[in-house]
Amino acid sequence: MRPYVFINLAMSADGKLSTYERRQVRISGEHDFLRVDEIKAGSDAIMVGIGTILADDPSLTVKSEERKAARRKEGADENPVRIVVDSSGRTPVDAEILHKGAGRRIIAVSRKADAARIHDLQKYAEVVACGDDKVHLTTLMEYLGGLGIRRLMVEGGGTLIWGLFNEGLVDELITCIGNVIIGGADAPTPVDGHGFVIESEFPTLELIESVPMDKGAVLRWRVIK
Amino acid sequence: MRPYVFINLAMSADGKLSTYERRQVRISGEHDFLRVDEIKAGSDAIMVGIGTILADDPSLTVKSEERKAARRKEGADENPVRIVVDSSGRTPVDAEILHKGAGRRIIAVSRKADAARIHDLQKYAEVVACGDDKVHLTTLMEYLGGLGIRRLMVEGGGTLIWGLFNEGLVDELITCIGNVIIGGADAPTPVDGHGFVIESEFPTLELIESVPMDKGAVLRWRVIK
Repeated sequence: MRPYVFINLAMSADGKLSTYERRQVRISGEHDFLRVDEIKAGSDAIMVGIGTILADDPSLTVKSEERKAARRKEGADENPVRIVVDSSGRTPVDAEILHKGAGRRIIAVSRKADAARIHDLQKYAEVVACGDDKVHLTTLMEYLGGLGIRRLMVEGGGTLIWGLFNEGLVDELITCIGNVIIGGADAPTPVDGHGFVIESEFPTLELIESVPMDKGAVLRWRVIK
Repeated sequence: MRPYVFINLAMSADGKLSTYERRQVRISGEHDFLRVDEIKAGSDAIMVGIGTILADDPSLTVKSEERKAARRKEGADENPVRIVVDSSGRTPVDAEILHKGAGRRIIAVSRKADAARIHDLQKYAEVVACGDDKVHLTTLMEYLGGLGIRRLMVEGGGTLIWGLFNEGLVDELITCIGNVIIGGADAPTPVDGHGFVIESEFPTLELIESVPMDKGAVLRWRVIK
C-alpha cells in the first residue's frame, strides 16, 4: 500500500515557486513557517526532487525543538525519513540533507545512475534503484509503503510534482499563496513538466480549506480524480 | 490621469491560464462567469493582448441583456471600450472583437506596425500608435485616461500583464482559482514575460477578499507597491 501523499508548497499570487533564475525567495511568512514545521513533524517522510536539492540545498529537518523531542518520545527519529528523487544520482555528497540532523535518508535513483556515484552516496544514505532511465514513482511509492511510511509530504519541485500528478499518486495539495508577484514565463511553477493536454486528463480537486495566512492565504485541496 | 487598472483572470490550482498548447480551457464555473460579466459591465474599457486574440478569439462583449440595457440607459455603449495591445498590428480583420456587439474598439500598435495592416484595421477600430518597437503601456494608459476611461479591466494574457506590472500600472489583481491541475513548464501563467529577479522588485499585494467560488476560490489583491 502506498503512502498518503500530500504536497505542500508556497507560491506567489501569480503561481511561481521562485524567480526564473531559480533563486529561492521568501514567499510565505512566519505563521506559515510554523504551520509547515508542524505538518512536517507529523509526517513519516518528506520528499523532494533533485532540482530542489541543487537549487536550494535544504536540510528538510524539523525546526522546533519541542516537536523533535515529541517525535523522539514516540520512538521515532527526530526527522521524517528524507527522500530525494534523483534519477541520475546527482545529489552532492556535501548536500545539507545528507549531513544535518538525525534520521534516515533515501536517495531514489534509476538504473542509469553511475555506479561510482551510487557508491559515494551510500556512505550517507540508502540508495534505491527503481526505473530504467528515470525513477518510476509508482514503484518507489510502493517500496516506501513497504517500509511502513504512511504519510509522505512532498515539498517540490515542479518537475517531481508533475510526475506524481501524472502517475495519479497525489492525495492532497496545499498551496500557501503569498502576497507578491514574481512573474516570468520561465519561472518554476507548482506543476511543471510536460503538462496535461485535454480536460479529461486534468486532475480535479475539492477545496477542503481556505484560510488567511500571514499576508496571503492557504488553500487545501483534496485530489478527487 | 491614467485609469484604475484591475486584472481579472482564472487560473488552475497550479497557476496556469491554459494548457501548454494555449488551448482555452474552462477553469472557472457558472457563478464566476456571472461575476466576470458583472465587473465587465461596470468597466469603462476592457483590454487584452494580441496573444489572447490569436489564441481564443474572444468578443469581450457583455453577455447579460439586462446589463447591456442598463449601460444603454446610462447613455453608454452596450459594451466597454474594447482595447487590443498589438505592437505589430496582427489582429485578424475577421476577429470576433472587431465584429461582435456595439461599441468602440481601439487597437494599440507600435510605430513598427505595417501601414497597410493599420489601414485594414482602421475599417473596424481606432488604431493608436504609441512606442517604437512595442506598445509603450504607460503612454497608452495616459491616452486612455484622456479619453475619459476611469475603470479599465484587463483579461490577459500573461505577457501583457507582465508589461503592466513591470511598468507599475496595476492597481488590483483578481484571481479565480479553479479546482483543476493543468501543469506544464511551458503553459501560460498569469504573469509571464521576463519576470522579476530580486525581492525588492516584486510588486507586493494586500489580500482584500477571499471568497469561495464554484468549486474553487476568488482572491482579490490590491497592489501596494
